[in-house]
Amino acid sequence: MAQFLSCTEALLAPPPDPPNKKTLMVVAAALINRKKQILIGQRPMDKDMGGLWEFPGGKIEPGETPEFALMRELREELAIETRPCGMMAAGFTSHTYPDFHLLMPLFMIRVWKGDPTPLVHQNLQWVHAHELYNIGMPEADLPLISVLESILGG
Amino acid sequence: MAQFLSCTEALLAPPPDPPNKKTLMVVAAALINRKKQILIGQRPMDKDMGGLWEFPGGKIEPGETPEFALMRELREELAIETRPCGMMAAGFTSHTYPDFHLLMPLFMIRVWKGDPTPLVHQNLQWVHAHELYNIGMPEADLPLISVLESILGG
Repeated sequence: MAQFLSCTEALLAPPPDPPNKKTLMVVAAALINRKKQILIGQRPMDKDMGGLWEFPGGKIEPGETPEFALMRELREELAIETRPCGMMAAGFTSHTYPDFHLLMPLFMIRVWKGDPTPLVHQNLQWVHAHELYNIGMPEADLPLISVLESILGG
Repeated sequence: MAQFLSCTEALLAPPPDPPNKKTLMVVAAALINRKKQILIGQRPMDKDMGGLWEFPGGKIEPGETPEFALMRELREELAIETRPCGMMAAGFTSHTYPDFHLLMPLFMIRVWKGDPTPLVHQNLQWVHAHELYNIGMPEADLPLISVLESILGG
């Protein structure tokens, strides 16, 4: 059988086996400023995917809603205050890594308190949506760029 | 303190307490036919939210990716075959119910095998995106209608 099947061909083949991968839920934020720029943070060099630029965010702890988790993570990562009421569902990405599967909903946030400060990232920058394509984001994040482009108008 | 705060006012108040709610992950499908209609199913009368119309789908079991879970659920609910390669992330909804929090990613699917058959729902119908507004969907699903409208063009 060919290694790569189009999706129509995949329907003629037997269904795939269960992937037996843990699905990791990570909630992320696209902070938007008045110039319609988006805040991204550069991962520390000593971490997985070090040097890549990502949307701030993190894991949902037990008992947390996605919005509450994001509020906590943005406080821990950027020293800013946000509130669940100011978070708007933008889109999500679903991506299989070798060891796990990532499901990451992305919320747009336009209202916060404080100046974003890199408590975890080695660097922060504000960029327009179209600039994200070539900035070096994790592969899982790439489908979210066109979502933000279509919402923000490029 | 006022019961309803705008989001800016909420930022001046202390952060809310952790909600202590379980976040339930449900993955859903918008099957799209050649007329750009979407398949919805009516929940059985004896279930929670009986009579309301919903996107087919269900819970992610341990070891499943969202796409694999959806493939399995669509087989169980509609007797159709789908494949992860034919699922496109459309958007998600995040909604607090009294007893739990629902996080529901929605995948668009245009390629499948078999005629959708209501094995779980009391009824199925194909409708255009704009018709979803008044058809009686769960409140959590409503934000997804405009997402589908913008992708499908109304």
